[in-house]
Amino acid sequence: MSIRQAGVIGLGLVGGSVGAALRRQGVMVHGFDSKRPHLDIARQRGLIDVAAGSMAQAVAAADLVVLAVPASAIIKLLPLADGMAPPGALLIDTGSVKGPVVEVMSGLSGADRAIGGHPIAGKEQAGPEAADGDLFSDHPFVLTPTAATAAATVARAEQLVRLLGARPVILTAAEHDEILARTSHLPQLLSSTLALAVSATDLVLSGPGLRDMTRLAGSEVTMWRDILLANRGQVTQAARQYIERLDELIRVVEVGDGPRLERALETGRRAVEPLRGGGS
Amino acid sequence: MSIRQAGVIGLGLVGGSVGAALRRQGVMVHGFDSKRPHLDIARQRGLIDVAAGSMAQAVAAADLVVLAVPASAIIKLLPLADGMAPPGALLIDTGSVKGPVVEVMSGLSGADRAIGGHPIAGKEQAGPEAADGDLFSDHPFVLTPTAATAAATVARAEQLVRLLGARPVILTAAEHDEILARTSHLPQLLSSTLALAVSATDLVLSGPGLRDMTRLAGSEVTMWRDILLANRGQVTQAARQYIERLDELIRVVEVGDGPRLERALETGRRAVEPLRGGGS
Repeated sequence: MSIRQAGVIGLGLVGGSVGAALRRQGVMVHGFDSKRPHLDIARQRGLIDVAAGSMAQAVAAADLVVLAVPASAIIKLLPLADGMAPPGALLIDTGSVKGPVVEVMSGLSGADRAIGGHPIAGKEQAGPEAADGDLFSDHPFVLTPTAATAAATVARAEQLVRLLGARPVILTAAEHDEILARTSHLPQLLSSTLALAVSATDLVLSGPGLRDMTRLAGSEVTMWRDILLANRGQVTQAARQYIERLDELIRVVEVGDGPRLERALETGRRAVEPLRGGGS
Repeated sequence: MSIRQAGVIGLGLVGGSVGAALRRQGVMVHGFDSKRPHLDIARQRGLIDVAAGSMAQAVAAADLVVLAVPASAIIKLLPLADGMAPPGALLIDTGSVKGPVVEVMSGLSGADRAIGGHPIAGKEQAGPEAADGDLFSDHPFVLTPTAATAAATVARAEQLVRLLGARPVILTAAEHDEILARTSHLPQLLSSTLALAVSATDLVLSGPGLRDMTRLAGSEVTMWRDILLANRGQVTQAARQYIERLDELIRVVEVGDGPRLERALETGRRAVEPLRGGGS
């Protein structure tokens, strides 16, 4: 039941960090990435033990298979990985949207050993250059079992999450996608919209506030396009609810209702107080 | 024409930083703050030379008077400061909204020596504890002359801005308020609205993105209430334009138009590229 041999497919920030964290725990890590430079950097930085020549090679002897590739690739690679990995190997992904992933997972012949995963951790930089064995430390790591996932698979996945230094949080894929729409995908959409709203001359008169609020807009475009589209139902609903709230606040400002505006700002300030005060 | 004696009224982050920067340039700084602890900290931290017992004392011998108090107080103190300061002393404020300020300024008996000012710099912390003589270094400092402001006053104000290490930018109050609505007041409103939209349980599954996007929501509530109300016309207009843009993006996500979504995200990414790459 313990994890001794891992096959990590995709060696960007997340996959590379998974490799580094697992190696530190004595797990033998076979890595593969279709981008040759990623594979080389991962090997040079010691994120993996073995740079495999193919996905089949990476997962051949694995008791854990991690798909840390972009959302669209997860869907495509899941049936392949399921066919290549030894029976009984744990099969998990790390994608940011879980609905489409668990849909495919639940149809696999090895559906009982498959489970969705999403580490809630990140940084602005991407790629194996930025990978870090501490990336997941003390962060939540969501696990989304399907109806077909075996109880033993959930237990092993929790064991994996703890091995990575993270805290397992079990949710349905729908719950995950609804929450992440608000806490991650909506913020991205808001940041990009703000970036579109300011002109080049505006930037001259901007302070740290605008820089903070447009930092996300500087993120990788194709990755976010895929995430926003994969979770479009929840994202559009969260964004429309946001517009309703913003519209309410605008009207409070418009009529000059100081006490009500102050109450709203104060309620917002308190709501995010837990995010203040250090930590990441 | 040079600045030798300054009276700085209000010794919070901005006033205290003005004091520290002026002292460094050999200007004798008389400070006053109606909050006794602010006055004491400013004196102890060497932000001012003299802790004056009243506004009248602070400005009695000044050739420069800086009103670095909250927006509502600026309006109230301007006529008093104008009556107390020696003839010919430069009279400037540091408020974030300039329309209401220049309206009062242009009606002063000393309207020719009065000019609106707004240093585009800040930090999350407030108060004289956070004041810093480098706060304005290489940042823009907007000057908003009124129709009654003398050309010599504009020239002296530019000299003051350079003395503080900042870059003078001359705008009308209306231009300033329209731009700042987009680059500062709207981001604040968006951040507070997002803070209101996420639940306590959502926070458990939030990453660095949400933390960035709600940092502003943690700012001082009464100060922002006043700023948003003082600039309500421009703020509501900027916010409604923002909603239109967001609504457009939502529809692109909703119909799953990948290429168009990617173009929008890419345009946003490029628009704020100048804010990336270090600096503040």
